[in-house]
Amino acid sequence: MGAGDLTPGTLAPPVPRPLVWEEGCVRILDQTRLQGEEAWLECRTVASVADAIRRLAVRGAPAIGIAGAYGVALAAHTGEPLDAAARELVATRPTAANLRWAVERVVRAAAAGRDALAEARAVEREDEQACEAIGEYGAALVPERANVLTHCNTGMLCTGGIGTAQGVIWTAHAQGKRVHVWVDETRPVLQGARLTAWELQRLGVPMTHVADGAAASLMSRGLVDLVITGADRIAANGDVANKVGTYGLAVSAAHHRVPFYVAAPTSTIDLATTAGDDIPIEEREPDEVRSAAGAPVAPPDVPVANPAFDVTPSSLVTAIVTERGVVRAPYPDRLRALTGATA
Amino acid sequence: MGAGDLTPGTLAPPVPRPLVWEEGCVRILDQTRLQGEEAWLECRTVASVADAIRRLAVRGAPAIGIAGAYGVALAAHTGEPLDAAARELVATRPTAANLRWAVERVVRAAAAGRDALAEARAVEREDEQACEAIGEYGAALVPERANVLTHCNTGMLCTGGIGTAQGVIWTAHAQGKRVHVWVDETRPVLQGARLTAWELQRLGVPMTHVADGAAASLMSRGLVDLVITGADRIAANGDVANKVGTYGLAVSAAHHRVPFYVAAPTSTIDLATTAGDDIPIEEREPDEVRSAAGAPVAPPDVPVANPAFDVTPSSLVTAIVTERGVVRAPYPDRLRALTGATA
Repeated sequence: MGAGDLTPGTLAPPVPRPLVWEEGCVRILDQTRLQGEEAWLECRTVASVADAIRRLAVRGAPAIGIAGAYGVALAAHTGEPLDAAARELVATRPTAANLRWAVERVVRAAAAGRDALAEARAVEREDEQACEAIGEYGAALVPERANVLTHCNTGMLCTGGIGTAQGVIWTAHAQGKRVHVWVDETRPVLQGARLTAWELQRLGVPMTHVADGAAASLMSRGLVDLVITGADRIAANGDVANKVGTYGLAVSAAHHRVPFYVAAPTSTIDLATTAGDDIPIEEREPDEVRSAAGAPVAPPDVPVANPAFDVTPSSLVTAIVTERGVVRAPYPDRLRALTGATA
Repeated sequence: MGAGDLTPGTLAPPVPRPLVWEEGCVRILDQTRLQGEEAWLECRTVASVADAIRRLAVRGAPAIGIAGAYGVALAAHTGEPLDAAARELVATRPTAANLRWAVERVVRAAAAGRDALAEARAVEREDEQACEAIGEYGAALVPERANVLTHCNTGMLCTGGIGTAQGVIWTAHAQGKRVHVWVDETRPVLQGARLTAWELQRLGVPMTHVADGAAASLMSRGLVDLVITGADRIAANGDVANKVGTYGLAVSAAHHRVPFYVAAPTSTIDLATTAGDDIPIEEREPDEVRSAAGAPVAPPDVPVANPAFDVTPSSLVTAIVTERGVVRAPYPDRLRALTGATA
């Protein structure tokens, strides 16, 4: 498949949407089974949507926001109490800011007498538009020829559009820039290997898949021009929570004077979180680390720490790319201005 | 099993030796199958020893040196030409210094009319003694209570004794220090998860297994007091080649002012290699990255880079622990003095 066949507006065929609403049912692509097969979960209750989010059938901060929004719409459709539904949905993933933001937005809309489903659709559509804008702003930061290193999955499978960090990569590629992507496999859940590599192959973007431990030596060999990742929550001071492994990349990028960019919609910015230390880091099941793609890799009873995220201090972040523009330090004032908040 | 049952001299029961010589046969523990079962390869030809080294049935710089030494002894036993045997063995793994060192030593001994098998046994016995000395010198660097982070496997499975970096950990633990080990899983071949976690559990050393990407955030949270790894080759200027992922740990350790130690016998020091840039880095099969413990984790045809090692510049190495003592910068003169070389 040639990349020339695709433009940011016509991406539906090569990569499926992470979820769709169909007459009282949230159909969620089961990303835990991707590559093996394209299997869809039919969620007709809030509990089933919450379960799909919890076990990562749908993942990525913007996509779980959209899933949460449709979860509330589902509650409105079936007559489940919205407050309880919202609590159940928000509790599934404690780190991502977008989930709470989207769920609360739909609950507020319904409380104000507006249609919950229309509000969920708006959340999704706005995320699609945000991705396109992030792509445009971010692509301007990408040189004409660039080796770009990314971590986890930030593409079409985890947003309402072309993706965040991956939307930047895709837009630069679609603009004709000579982009080559280093894809970190992203242990333990392997979102880079399973999802980003799969998406980029379908999109025809040149890429090479590497173990997470290889990233720093790629930088030392001059093979990385920039690092770009997504974010699960951005604190008021610009500290960024993202998939575990991101922080180490930021430290290495700083050591090698490689720009480290974060791409995220403004719904990821949580001004109520003062700094990274205040972001709750989800500790997930030890078996995610004891196994890989279902195969055991360590003794079955070995003690494990499995923080799903880490925090990168704003001092290591070269710039944050949002749908409203590119923000650089000093972050506190500029993030506040960007989101329209008053001091 | 309590740690009190074990002292460095009595380690045979809990962890098997990586290989043994038995009447014209090099029996090699197949570490690719460890955890599942304890399977032994019976190598009666140099080609079968070379194959076992190549496919990582036996791995770790000191152990492949010992395997290479016995491979030459096997050639002497069966009447294969020693020079061809040496070439075949040395070609299996280009990065490790110990392999060439040990193979050439046994060939030289045989050429001088000495018994090749006795020389191979001496290589193994001296490595056992080196491990004990490394353990003692290194343990003096470990605080009374310490969280130690390590990468790959440097224990009894990859040396003739208690291990290098892991020998330091074991000795500190046996001395009664309160050591807790963070074990990096070490993708792609998972030596940390499969081998180090398994060994430390058998030895009763407190440990927690983590994904490689979690290491930097453990440091930022103050949960790492020192990092210690092994080495596959140490250049004359102190640059260290070791398992891929080591360099990123060294960068993060420097960023957090955490000591970064390397433990290796002097047979790992190669004064003929001027600096890290001159060390050949073995590029291994892409399928090691596309799969984990036999399970596919990425699209089957995705492009992969799989450098098995990386190079840490001596500027990031706090000290190198050898069987002859602890070496600190300036490395060139001190490594030369340590190995008894003249300028």
